[in-house]
Amino acid sequence: MTASPLGPGAEFDLIRRLTAGVDDAPPGVELGSGDDAAVLEGGWVVSVDLAVEGVHFRREWLDVEEIGGRAVRAALSDLAAMAATPVGVLLSLAGSVDDYGDGTLEAVGRGGRAAAAACGASVLGGDVTRSPRGLVIDVVAIGRTNRPARRRGARPGDDLWVTGSLGLAAAVVTRLESGAPVGPRDRARFAHPRPRTAEAVWLAETGHLRALIDLSDGLAGDAGHVAAASGVRLTVEDDAVPVAAAAVDLVGAADARRLALQGGEDYELLAVLAPEFDAHADAFRKRFSKVALTRVGSVGAGEGVVLRTRGRERPMTGGFDHFDEGPST
Amino acid sequence: MTASPLGPGAEFDLIRRLTAGVDDAPPGVELGSGDDAAVLEGGWVVSVDLAVEGVHFRREWLDVEEIGGRAVRAALSDLAAMAATPVGVLLSLAGSVDDYGDGTLEAVGRGGRAAAAACGASVLGGDVTRSPRGLVIDVVAIGRTNRPARRRGARPGDDLWVTGSLGLAAAVVTRLESGAPVGPRDRARFAHPRPRTAEAVWLAETGHLRALIDLSDGLAGDAGHVAAASGVRLTVEDDAVPVAAAAVDLVGAADARRLALQGGEDYELLAVLAPEFDAHADAFRKRFSKVALTRVGSVGAGEGVVLRTRGRERPMTGGFDHFDEGPST
Repeated sequence: MTASPLGPGAEFDLIRRLTAGVDDAPPGVELGSGDDAAVLEGGWVVSVDLAVEGVHFRREWLDVEEIGGRAVRAALSDLAAMAATPVGVLLSLAGSVDDYGDGTLEAVGRGGRAAAAACGASVLGGDVTRSPRGLVIDVVAIGRTNRPARRRGARPGDDLWVTGSLGLAAAVVTRLESGAPVGPRDRARFAHPRPRTAEAVWLAETGHLRALIDLSDGLAGDAGHVAAASGVRLTVEDDAVPVAAAAVDLVGAADARRLALQGGEDYELLAVLAPEFDAHADAFRKRFSKVALTRVGSVGAGEGVVLRTRGRERPMTGGFDHFDEGPST
Repeated sequence: MTASPLGPGAEFDLIRRLTAGVDDAPPGVELGSGDDAAVLEGGWVVSVDLAVEGVHFRREWLDVEEIGGRAVRAALSDLAAMAATPVGVLLSLAGSVDDYGDGTLEAVGRGGRAAAAACGASVLGGDVTRSPRGLVIDVVAIGRTNRPARRRGARPGDDLWVTGSLGLAAAVVTRLESGAPVGPRDRARFAHPRPRTAEAVWLAETGHLRALIDLSDGLAGDAGHVAAASGVRLTVEDDAVPVAAAAVDLVGAADARRLALQGGEDYELLAVLAPEFDAHADAFRKRFSKVALTRVGSVGAGEGVVLRTRGRERPMTGGFDHFDEGPST
């Protein structure tokens, strides 16, 4: 088993170097580096997600319980990307002596526990330590699957689909960054993203799922990961991308469309499905009546991701990279 | 399966609260919170260890490759505490834009990879992100065992043993904190602790291992965890504790003895063995000729840990707690 190549970007280059050389997974490991998680014999899936204050979250934006919950939900989305059902999390927290003393760390943990429980996972353990400055939330997500989904596997002729609608998370961040108000409903959606676990498992069970990723880096970035891992070229149809209506309300139509393509952290799924899946799309919509499923493009020979807008194609780059684009402190 | 109680201390109280309520492990999880790691069906063991600059390490003390390596070795010691053999690690790093730009993050990752390889583990994946200030190194250790060792299981009449000798890591830190020199040999031992994996597996295979923990919080603290998890009272014989000769050279006999009892991060094993183990002790010493194995005490009814010094007993408390005792920045 070879490691999955990652898409472009400084962060991904570094990960690539750090995890290089693991072309042969050790015995019992069915999938090594480069994917959303490691898959272990028996169908166990283990992933890790590190959230750092001032980079991944700010206390002005959410209360600390919500911050803990969102970190856990984001980590469990990595399991959904493998079509794995959450079982447990290891929750590690670092905070200052003040954060410890005033109950902040405990509130982060409480939020994390509640989010885990809401997603069907137990807190199995973890670690608590001091940080000289700023909170660090580290979530190890442990899940299980019979049919692990991967980033690799897309083939020319397949179709590209996304669940839900895109751009809301980035639109909320845009508003919060400029100090503009965000209504309670949008705020709640931002604070409590729902990992698309059941949807991912359902798609895997059709037998037509060729590749899967969750949209944490954004459509452009995550499509890039799939294209690189699969050795194909993805074409995204600009008009087909489902832009969240709430994002349009928050930042206007033009910015909302840009954020739907480039913004991150919606935690929807980008699925590559064989053409035969078409016959199942209505069944998905019946089963998950509140979750849209939209065909947004296709897979061809070549490499990279292109965006087709009214017949014209251009490279679709970007991808959320916390070294370039994270909020500054 | 109920969660293992932890020993005293603020950090442990918080972990206890955060992981409370997981008295029933989810299906497929053989051991939940409170132990060194989670054990999954199939013998997989997963643990996590978060190391924060200014709390767990300082750049003045070690070079950044050594810092990355030591973090991985410490995490793999958690697997040894479960009598599990390392398979892989997920390595997540956070650092500043400068740390990224000048190659520091990459050097940390390189050190981590080299340490993993030296211990028989592959880097299976991970995450790289920005930190506004200071390095964060997060290591998820994945191992496998046929006979998971636990903190619970000590019974009155059992004996308490430790591998190796104690106090060197704390003695080195004491010297470094005061700006005093540390020779290359002591420094190397501090930088590259060797997880006692083979020793732990060997002890488990005798069938006489009742409880096991690695000495990361220090003998007092970790014995407290075992006493609490097992619901017993541990008695440590002061004179029997093997004080590292190199620690005596570095800080003098009195301080070295104190650090052997209270200091952390030696990554030796504290094993509770049934009396029948006595007949195997020589076989251990033959098999691991460079690693001492010393009987340091006994298990009785009651609770807590007592230190017996020339016939007098006193409570043995302490235990390394990064909220109280970590180096400040």
